[in-house]
Amino acid sequence: MSQYRTFTAADAVEYARQYGGVENPESLVESQEIGDGNLNLVFKIFDRDGNSRVIVKQALPYVRCVGESWPLTLDRARIEAEVLQIHGQYCPEYTVKILHHDPELAVMVMEDLSHLAIWRGEQVKGRDYPQASAQLGEYLAQALFHTSDFYQHPYQKKAEVIRFTNPELCDITEELFFNEPYEVHERNGYPRALEPLAASLRDDDELRLRVAALKHRFFSHAEALLHGDVHSGSIFVGDNTLKLIDAEFGYYGPIGFDVGSALGNLLINYCALPGLMAPREAADAREKRLSDVRVTWQSFADRFLTLTAEKSRDRALAWPGYGAAFLRKVWCDTLGYCGTELIRRTVGMSQVADIKTIEDEVMKVECVRQAIALGRTLILAAEHVDNIDALIARVRQNG
Amino acid sequence: MSQYRTFTAADAVEYARQYGGVENPESLVESQEIGDGNLNLVFKIFDRDGNSRVIVKQALPYVRCVGESWPLTLDRARIEAEVLQIHGQYCPEYTVKILHHDPELAVMVMEDLSHLAIWRGEQVKGRDYPQASAQLGEYLAQALFHTSDFYQHPYQKKAEVIRFTNPELCDITEELFFNEPYEVHERNGYPRALEPLAASLRDDDELRLRVAALKHRFFSHAEALLHGDVHSGSIFVGDNTLKLIDAEFGYYGPIGFDVGSALGNLLINYCALPGLMAPREAADAREKRLSDVRVTWQSFADRFLTLTAEKSRDRALAWPGYGAAFLRKVWCDTLGYCGTELIRRTVGMSQVADIKTIEDEVMKVECVRQAIALGRTLILAAEHVDNIDALIARVRQNG
Repeated sequence: MSQYRTFTAADAVEYARQYGGVENPESLVESQEIGDGNLNLVFKIFDRDGNSRVIVKQALPYVRCVGESWPLTLDRARIEAEVLQIHGQYCPEYTVKILHHDPELAVMVMEDLSHLAIWRGEQVKGRDYPQASAQLGEYLAQALFHTSDFYQHPYQKKAEVIRFTNPELCDITEELFFNEPYEVHERNGYPRALEPLAASLRDDDELRLRVAALKHRFFSHAEALLHGDVHSGSIFVGDNTLKLIDAEFGYYGPIGFDVGSALGNLLINYCALPGLMAPREAADAREKRLSDVRVTWQSFADRFLTLTAEKSRDRALAWPGYGAAFLRKVWCDTLGYCGTELIRRTVGMSQVADIKTIEDEVMKVECVRQAIALGRTLILAAEHVDNIDALIARVRQNG
Repeated sequence: MSQYRTFTAADAVEYARQYGGVENPESLVESQEIGDGNLNLVFKIFDRDGNSRVIVKQALPYVRCVGESWPLTLDRARIEAEVLQIHGQYCPEYTVKILHHDPELAVMVMEDLSHLAIWRGEQVKGRDYPQASAQLGEYLAQALFHTSDFYQHPYQKKAEVIRFTNPELCDITEELFFNEPYEVHERNGYPRALEPLAASLRDDDELRLRVAALKHRFFSHAEALLHGDVHSGSIFVGDNTLKLIDAEFGYYGPIGFDVGSALGNLLINYCALPGLMAPREAADAREKRLSDVRVTWQSFADRFLTLTAEKSRDRALAWPGYGAAFLRKVWCDTLGYCGTELIRRTVGMSQVADIKTIEDEVMKVECVRQAIALGRTLILAAEHVDNIDALIARVRQNG
C-alpha cells in the first residue's frame, strides 16, 4: 500500500514509467515541475528526445500559494481523478484522459496536452478558437445529463453523491463565491478606486437575498456531478479540440453552477478586452466572445434537451416536455451563478489574467467596474432574462 | 456483537429488561405483538401489574404485508432511530423518545405511548384535539430548521446527508408517490367507478410535468433531514400532547415534502368526513379540519421564520428576509407534495382508514373523487395559491 510522500522530480519520472502507459517506459528520463496553480505539484515528463509524454499531478496537503498554514484535504486528488474518469466516460473527446490514479499518494497520471494551450491565455492574447464554445457546451451537456436523475438510477446516484462529497473544496467555493465578495474581507482583491461600488454590493438588500438563494442551492441542489470549476483556465484548446482539466472541486450540485461559471469567465474576458487590445481589435474580439457565450449555452441546451428526449431513464422525468421545463430552471441558475462568478473574480480573491494583464490602471478599473455591474445585473435579473438573446442584449446594454 | 435474528415475544421482554430503563427490570414479564403496520414487529412490554411500560420495535428483512418475496433493508431501523433521536434533540416534546437502538438487530426500544391515540383513528371517529395542529407545526419547524443549511455547519450537513442516505425507502416513495398513481399499475387502489378520472390523470400533460418536477426535487433537493412519512397514522395525540413516530423514511429532502404530507392527510380526512358521519357533524368536523390545516401551516411557518431570524448560522442565509423568501418556495413545494399525497392515498396503493371506513360505496366513491380532484388542483395551481387563506378557499371551492 502506498503512503503519502511529496514527489520529487525523480519520483515523478519513476511513477510515469510505471503508470504512464508509454511503450518504452525507460525512455522517460526527465521531469519539469510546471504547477502554476494554487494547490498542486504538476510534473511534465519528458522522453530522451525532449518530448513531453505524460503529466504527473500530485496534490499537496496544503494550499500551495498560501503555505502549510492552510491545510487542505488530499482526498481532492481522488475526487478530481474520479470526476474526470466519469466525465470522460460520457464525453471522452473533451475530457483529459486519466491514465492512472492513486488516492493514497494523491497522484494521478494523465495524458500530456502540451500541444494545446489554456483557453484563458489565448483569449487574453486575442487568439480565436471558433469551435471551442460548441465543444464546451457539448461537454457540459454530456457530463451533466449522464450524472443527473434523468439518467442515473436512484441507487447509483445516491451512492455517487456520497462518493463525491467534497466538504473542504465546497467550503472554498461557498466562501469565495457567496460570502467574501459581499463583505469587508482581507482576501478581497478589487481596486481601491472601486470601494464605493464594492460597498454598494454589501448594502444591496435584493442582491444579498439572491446571493443567499444561490448559495442555498449550491448547498442543497444535488442535480448532477459538477466539474465544479469550469473556467477558461481549466480548459485546454487547440485546432478543433478542447479538453477539460482540474476537476478537484467536483461534487453533486446545481447544473447551472457549471454552466454559469463557464459563461461568467467568457464575460469577464468580454469586459476585459478593451483593456487588452486596441479599440478595433477589442470590438472584434468582443463580438467573438459574445458568440462564444451564445454558442456555449445553445450547444449545451440543444444537446441536453436531445439527451433528455432520447436517453432519460427515470419514468417520471422522461415525460415529454419535462427536459425543457427543467432547462428553464437551469437557465435561471446559470444567469445567477454567472453573475456570482463575475463578481467573485473581480471583487473577490480569485483575480484572473484577463484583468491582471491590463496595464493601464484607469482602464483596468473601468473593466472591473463593468464586470461587477454586469454580475450584479445578472444576479438581480436572472428571472427576467428570458433567453440567450436577452442575455446578449443585457451584456451590450452594460457597456 | 449482536447478529440479526427475529425476536420472539420472550426475546422482546428480555431486551426491554436490559434496555428499557425501567427501575425494576424484572417487573417486566410479558409482551404483546401489536404491529399493524406493513413493515415491522412491534412489541408492547407489560409489567406484573399489566401496565405497558416500553415498546420494542424490530424491522423485518422484508415487507411484512407482502411477505419474504419483497425484501427490504434492515438499515431502515437504524435510520428511524437516528432520525427520531435528532428530531428529539430539537423537539423533545413532540418526538417519541428512543431509549436504545441496535442497528445489527434492527431493534429500538422506545417510550410507551399507550395513553395516547393515533391521530388518524381519532379523526375518523370525529374526536378533536385542538392543540395537535399547532404542535405538529412546531415539530416540523424545529426538526426541519435545525437540520437545514440555515443551522447546520456545511461539513456536518454533508456528513449527515451521507448518514441518512436511504435508497430503498426513498425508492418506495419515488414509486408510490410519483409513478404508480399516474400509470396503469396493479398496485393502484382506486374504486373501479373512478377509472375515467384515473385515466384523465395519466393523460394530463401539465399534471405529469408538475409531478415530474416534484419527483425531481424529491430526488435532488437536500434541504433538511425529513421525517419522510408525516401522516396522521404516524402521529400520536392526547390531552395537550402529540408525538411523532415511524421515521424510517427519513432522509435529506425538500422541506415541503414533510409539510405537504402533513397537510395532505388532514385534507384526505376533510374529503372523507361526509362519508364518516351525519351531515351536520361532518360539516363541523370539516371546519375543524380546515382549522387544523391552517394552524399546522401557520405555526410551522411562524416558528420557522423566527428560527431563521434568531438562529441562522450560515452568514449568507442569515441575511434578513432570506428566511421569508425561502419559505415562499417551501409553500409552493408544500402545495405540490400535498397534492401528490392526496392522489397517492386515493389512486395509489396506500389507502387510508379515513376512506376505507366509509361504508356507503357511493359516498366512498364521491369522497375519493373529491380528494383526487383536490390533489390535482393543488399540484397544478401550486404557484398560484398565494397563501394559507387561498388554500382554504380552494379547498372549499373543491366541494
